[in-house]
Order: sequence, then structure tokens, then C-alpha cells
Amino acid sequence: MRFIVADWGTTRFRGYLVENETIIDEVSSEEGVSALQSGQHRDVFMRQCGRWLEAEPDAPVLLVGMVGSREGWVMAPYASCPAGPADVAAAMIPVELENGRKAHIVPGLTCEPAPGAYDVMRGEETLVLGSGVEDGIVCSPGTHPKWIEMRGGRVQRFATYMTGEMYALLREHSMIGRPATEPEDPKGFDLGLDAAARNGGDTGERRVGLLHLLFGARAAVVSGHMATGLLAPYLSGLLTGDEINGALSQFGKPASVTILADAPRADLYIHALARHGIATQVRAPREALIAGLARIVRAHAQAKN
Amino acid sequence: MRFIVADWGTTRFRGYLVENETIIDEVSSEEGVSALQSGQHRDVFMRQCGRWLEAEPDAPVLLVGMVGSREGWVMAPYASCPAGPADVAAAMIPVELENGRKAHIVPGLTCEPAPGAYDVMRGEETLVLGSGVEDGIVCSPGTHPKWIEMRGGRVQRFATYMTGEMYALLREHSMIGRPATEPEDPKGFDLGLDAAARNGGDTGERRVGLLHLLFGARAAVVSGHMATGLLAPYLSGLLTGDEINGALSQFGKPASVTILADAPRADLYIHALARHGIATQVRAPREALIAGLARIVRAHAQAKN
Repeated sequence: MRFIVADWGTTRFRGYLVENETIIDEVSSEEGVSALQSGQHRDVFMRQCGRWLEAEPDAPVLLVGMVGSREGWVMAPYASCPAGPADVAAAMIPVELENGRKAHIVPGLTCEPAPGAYDVMRGEETLVLGSGVEDGIVCSPGTHPKWIEMRGGRVQRFATYMTGEMYALLREHSMIGRPATEPEDPKGFDLGLDAAARNGGDTGERRVGLLHLLFGARAAVVSGHMATGLLAPYLSGLLTGDEINGALSQFGKPASVTILADAPRADLYIHALARHGIATQVRAPREALIAGLARIVRAHAQAKN
Repeated sequence: MRFIVADWGTTRFRGYLVENETIIDEVSSEEGVSALQSGQHRDVFMRQCGRWLEAEPDAPVLLVGMVGSREGWVMAPYASCPAGPADVAAAMIPVELENGRKAHIVPGLTCEPAPGAYDVMRGEETLVLGSGVEDGIVCSPGTHPKWIEMRGGRVQRFATYMTGEMYALLREHSMIGRPATEPEDPKGFDLGLDAAARNGGDTGERRVGLLHLLFGARAAVVSGHMATGLLAPYLSGLLTGDEINGALSQFGKPASVTILADAPRADLYIHALARHGIATQVRAPREALIAGLARIVRAHAQAKN
């Protein structure tokens, strides 16, 4: 089975020609969704991937990521959890390519973690469906890390944390992060995890609040107790540790977590989760993406037959 | 008793001539510490307050705030908690004005909330010593709000939260805050306090994590469940609520809290604390500042006699 994919995010366009689960050709450009105006998407796709369309007249075409957001080609409404490959395939939105040929936009997912509370993902649903995890907890790190509970091969529920964006905000714009210097001392990451333990753990303990622990980083620097080379890794450890605190509270403490990340980001989670006695498996995001798309393509083909 | 004061912060210089606890003359400028180079502070002070020095040749002169930081006139090392007026007075650092006359820089305070953890304040020690609270919990809102435990008229310990700075970061620089629109709908503040309850409360409950609740604000907007006019007050309520969660965990739940703030900021804390069944008293920061300085001046005079 061959299919054509555009992994089309905020900042990048990545096209793949896939045979089974192997990428046999690929293109990449900086024509991410944020760089495009309404109406430009079709032309970008045809210029990047048009030769594959000609060579593979029967190959399904899938678009995944922010291309389905309000700022993308067409808004693909979120499908609701629980959702497996068939549910995602059924909620795909077609867009016209040429001569009646269509591409299908993979929708994101939404869930309601509490009454009146909402969460969303767009792209990670495809990764996690290709993670190989049928029942268990998957973590997809990044700007907005996702923790996902899989049950019976479907996304049961999930929770997003703004960890990566918060780190960037603190480093680039805050009084807290301003004193940070390079070279970074990676020992700061463990100090940050130590601090996060003051805002987590079993019931009955004090939880001092993340906003307090963040100020504590500044206080330690200005009072001369922390070398400025430790500060950036410390903030990373504190935020990652507090994300894990929250995820373990929401999903319970699993024996094992599957991490969808490449090194060195995966290594940070392996290390942080080991402190909780949690084992980890790592799956490369690109492999998971292609595997997830293959499942969605198959589910879509089955539904048509 | 008359004394001369400069409340000298990062962005503003405020000079007061005080008789007992009444301001009888004042000056103000934008010559905050961040606008000045090393060596300029004396000239600024003499230009702004020199006429009071001549008119009041015996009046003590105190400088309070960031003027005592590393970026200020002279670095005044932090005094350690617990600390009352006599401890603060004894740790003041003199600087030369003219003809042998000196001003004294009020030091900040430091405490160690946990092994290897540090907190600092510079300026709020004077406010809280003038708060009228001998035993109890005082909250000083702002860019970096302080929660302070007073015991026997001394600052026993305190905890700083980066609430105000975080709100500004989220509003000005984040994907989370970007969709916010005006006019703001103040009902969002209560929705944010509701969300904060998912990260606090009594032991045994789930605590989902502040980084998750912050992303939830974006998820609610992009999924069409939250009007964008609610977003900014929501973020304010969520951050304030999580600050209060942490403070109540650290200091226990008091019957009453004294808030050192003017309206409308004080009103937000009154409202948020009432949801926890906590009564509030409000004291204006400027009154507290002058009252605190008067106590430090008297303690300094007594120590000299």
C-alpha cells in the first residue's frame, strides 16, 4: 500500500511518499501554516507533492497537523474521545486537489477532563495511534506536551501541559530566567526535579505552588545560592517535574510510560520518570506518525468497502 | 518625630518628608533604579530631597526598596528571618550624603522555606512591619506577591509567588494569552478560580497541575467553549487562585488575612479568599510603608541610645 502524506504544522511543511510503513521519498519546506494566507495551501501542496500524485494515481492523500486548524487549509472539527483509527478516519475532511482527486485532513481530538473543562490536540492523535500502545499511558513531549491514556486501541482521554512554551517564555521574557548564563550546567535539571517534589507526591504533603517554586529560582540566584549556569536546566527540570506531578495525579501512577520523542528530549523524561520508579519505552515521533497514518488510511479504505 | 524617606524602586523614585506617620511633603520622579548607573544615586537623592535635608538637619534619612539591591546605590545584604523592626534597623547599611550626614538603606529579608530553598524580599519587609499585624498572615500582592507569617511582631517566614509577572508574560508573549480580546468580561475571573480548584483543596483530591490548567484556557477558546473576552480575567483568576492554593498549603488556612493593596487589586483577593471562607482586612500600601519606616526609625534611635 502506497500513500501520500503532508505533515503540515505551524512552521514547516513535510511531505512523504510512503510504501507500507517506509518513507520512500520526502520533501520539506518552511511553508508552515503560519506563513500562508487563506487560498495558498493547494498551490503549496501541488508544487511540493504534485509529482507523487501523477506517479501514484491511486494513492490516498492525507494531511495532518495544524493544516486542519482555523488558520489552515480548511478547519477540520475536532473528533471526540474516545477515538480510534476508524473514528478519526470517519471524521476526516476532504479538500479538492485536481481533476476530482481529494486529500483528507486528519481531524484533531477533543476531550472534557472535567465539567466545563476542555482539551484539544491536533497531530498527536496520529502519533499516538501509531505508538504501538493499545492500553497504557503515552507521553508526547514538545511545546505543549500531551499525556494520553490508550484503552482498547483508542484514545480514551488526554491532558495537555504548556511546559515547553512556558520554558521559552521564562527564558526569553522573564525576570526569573533573565540571569541564566551559558554554558549550562546540566546538574540544574535534577535540582529542578527536587524542587518540583515540593509541589507533588502523595496526598497529605504540602504543595507549595509552581508560581512559588519559579520565584524560588530567582531568589536562589539573587541571594547567591545558585550559580547562573544552573538556572536554565533548573527551570526545565522544575517545569518537567511539575508536568509529571500533574499527569500522575490525573492518570494514576503507571508501571510504564511510552515516550514519543527523539533524544535528547526523551532522555529528560526517562530520567524524570525513573525518579518515580516508572519504566519507559521510547518511540521515534516520525515512525509513530507514519504508523498512525497507515492505520487511518486502512480504516478509511475499510469503511469505503 | 520627623524623618525623610526615599521609596526607591525599579521604575520610580518617591521621596517623603514624614512627621510621625503623616506625609507632609513629597516628590516623585521616574529615576528608578533601573534607569540609573552606578554613582548617580547620590545626585538624584540630593536633587529631589536636598531641601528637606537643609530644613530638617536632625531628621533621620531612610532609603527602602531596590535601591539596596545589587543594581542599586549600595548592595544591602538581606537580613534573615525571623526579623522585627530592631533586627531590620540593626542591619541597615549607611551611605554618605554630605557633610558627614548619612542615609540608611533598609535591607531586604531572606528565608529558607525548605532545605536548599530560598526566598527574598526587598521593600515588603517595611510594609509588613507597618501592617499593624503582630501575629497572623499578611498578603502583599504585586508583580511578585508575598505571603508573610507574622509572629510576635516579627516576620517569621514568607513565600513569594510570581503571579503578576506570569500574568504579564502570558498576556504579552504567549500562545495561551494571544486570543484575549477587550472589552474584558470580569466573569472570567471566577471561572479561573473554579479551574484553580482543580489544582488545590484538601488532601486526597486530584491536582492536575497549573501548566495543564493554563493550556486548558487555550483549548477552551480554540474549541469554541470560551468567549475571548473572558480569557484575560480567566488567566488572572487561575493564577491568583493557584497562588492562594499554595499559600494555604504552606501557611495553613487562617481565619483572616491582611491584604496590603489598594482597590481594585485588593478586591480580587478579598473575593478569592472569601471563596475559601477566609475574612480579609485591607491596609493601603503607602500607609503601611510609612508606619513600617516609623517603627524602623524608632528602633534605630533606641539602639543608638
